[in-house]
Amino acid sequence: MMRGMPETVIFRQATAGDVPAIVAMLADDPLGAKREGHPDDERYREAFARVDANPYDELIVAERDGEVVGTMQLTYLAGLSRRGAERCQIEAVRVAASTRGQGLGRRMIQWGVDRARARGCAVVQLTSDKSRADAHRFYGSLGFANSHEGFKLTLG
Amino acid sequence: MMRGMPETVIFRQATAGDVPAIVAMLADDPLGAKREGHPDDERYREAFARVDANPYDELIVAERDGEVVGTMQLTYLAGLSRRGAERCQIEAVRVAASTRGQGLGRRMIQWGVDRARARGCAVVQLTSDKSRADAHRFYGSLGFANSHEGFKLTLG
Repeated sequence: MMRGMPETVIFRQATAGDVPAIVAMLADDPLGAKREGHPDDERYREAFARVDANPYDELIVAERDGEVVGTMQLTYLAGLSRRGAERCQIEAVRVAASTRGQGLGRRMIQWGVDRARARGCAVVQLTSDKSRADAHRFYGSLGFANSHEGFKLTLG
Repeated sequence: MMRGMPETVIFRQATAGDVPAIVAMLADDPLGAKREGHPDDERYREAFARVDANPYDELIVAERDGEVVGTMQLTYLAGLSRRGAERCQIEAVRVAASTRGQGLGRRMIQWGVDRARARGCAVVQLTSDKSRADAHRFYGSLGFANSHEGFKLTLG
């Protein structure tokens, strides 16, 4: 039986002041540790400013007792496919190490799915590194179909 | 040995007048046939207008002798991950049935990758339905790593 999350968790749009906590969560991860830098790196602040200014991007944090304990980014994608449907893409999902195993990730993704549904999105989509087997089971349990292969080309 | 494409193929941003040809290519596909509608459906025009107005979206067509024979959408995604790197996402890739097997898809994707590199994107990413085995070999041959699982949740 999973321990319940306290009801005091809220989900909200991130502010500039949340950036160091978000970067720390991105880096505290087997894959993220190799590619993230110092939270004060100016490039993080610049990226935050662009996301914050874009009406189709929402950088979300989960806050509990005044502390940021989770994050994800929602991007609302337009395109002609599926009769011009809007899709919601979820990226950069992290739960703070102190808070794992308490159901926060599940609540956060469900919150995002509900938000996408309320906007009228036709699809919620995300990719997960093939090494993250636990994440794959997690998304399957939330109703996501593992229907696609995800390809990346890193540019030098 | 693959036949060479004539040198008269150009890649350019789509205009509103290209929308019917793009929709026809989206629909002329085992998966697309089930989910696309009439090219005159107003939702396609609305989606085009949003893409066209967004500086981070580029709907591309390949044109040969005045005819649209290929399409793809490039979206430039911002986020904090990877030190705030911009990523290029490719979606809705199609080559007209009349033009398949002539290397146009390869040229089009390479054009997109070059464009992403010139902007300074750190990564080019895309997903492909698990049923499209030929596409998976194609992207692998272009240097893409099949590193991720792609999940979709269709909203009712």
